[in-house]
Amino acid sequence: MQPFPLDQAFTFLESGPVTLVTTHDGRRDNVMTITWTMVLDFDARFAITTGPWNYSWEAIEKTRECVLAIPSADMLDTVVGIGLCSGRDTDKFEKFGLARRKAERVKAPLLTECLANIECRVIDIIAPYGIVILEGVAAHANPHRKERSPLHAIGDGTFVTDGPVLDRRVMMRPKLPPSVLTHKS
Amino acid sequence: MQPFPLDQAFTFLESGPVTLVTTHDGRRDNVMTITWTMVLDFDARFAITTGPWNYSWEAIEKTRECVLAIPSADMLDTVVGIGLCSGRDTDKFEKFGLARRKAERVKAPLLTECLANIECRVIDIIAPYGIVILEGVAAHANPHRKERSPLHAIGDGTFVTDGPVLDRRVMMRPKLPPSVLTHKS
Repeated sequence: MQPFPLDQAFTFLESGPVTLVTTHDGRRDNVMTITWTMVLDFDARFAITTGPWNYSWEAIEKTRECVLAIPSADMLDTVVGIGLCSGRDTDKFEKFGLARRKAERVKAPLLTECLANIECRVIDIIAPYGIVILEGVAAHANPHRKERSPLHAIGDGTFVTDGPVLDRRVMMRPKLPPSVLTHKS
Repeated sequence: MQPFPLDQAFTFLESGPVTLVTTHDGRRDNVMTITWTMVLDFDARFAITTGPWNYSWEAIEKTRECVLAIPSADMLDTVVGIGLCSGRDTDKFEKFGLARRKAERVKAPLLTECLANIECRVIDIIAPYGIVILEGVAAHANPHRKERSPLHAIGDGTFVTDGPVLDRRVMMRPKLPPSVLTHKS
């Protein structure tokens, strides 16, 4: 994991990848799989949707912190497995042998095998919809992973990996934020 | 465009595709490109993020209706072009030769070249964040388009198309909503 510019962190979430959300409830680490995420702003502001039925909800509500980690396609079985059990009765880090590292600004851990990690503070919770509004406070990327594709969930138990890249950087220049105008990805 | 089960409509948005949002302000149709979308529920409930700086915002706020359309990868230049101009001074349907059809339940039009269209009512607007909460009221799919891949924006002017599909339907069965258990996609 290497430091990554916070004002480019949205480029990890913009494509709609499956995301792992880590928390630390004061006693131990936990992690959940989420596909319901959205960028809110170029300035590292994001939304995720979850709810009290997820064990992680309580930790997010209480600590007002979490980490959004972007798993690579070769982590699919871990990602699905994490979504099929609960931190209520399972230490998912042990069960799935997840490598982690201390974060810089929050108590939730970084997942070092993931393509990217964004440390976040909760700035609001829109309770009726389970929407959690997050502000990124630090970002990290892992340039050493050979597998570069994130996962995209279809929602029916199938997942799609990244295919060919289409470049429209010149055409889109007037609409892009300054932070990505020199961004090589 | 053929009718598509509303309770499977989330499968078109779950992967985080670039989306076209059509509106009808009482006088004329408009369309904008959006990549900031999120599924909120298996029951056809979605969020999009936009704001008053988009000309479509006023129509969405006033009419409380829109259509979410999922363009295919071969529509990339149209999709980017739509995002680079404004309905304030441009008839985007004319400019881009967009094929449209009357919707069933809302006044915003369907885009018949897209892979899918979801007719939506606005059920809430979370103004401080520009989040519009939508409820799908009808869905349509276009099974005749040869190009089956949607687009995923990275946010830096590059886009990714769909690569290989990974099937974990058996493993995920306990977590999937009944609507997609027989879903062949």
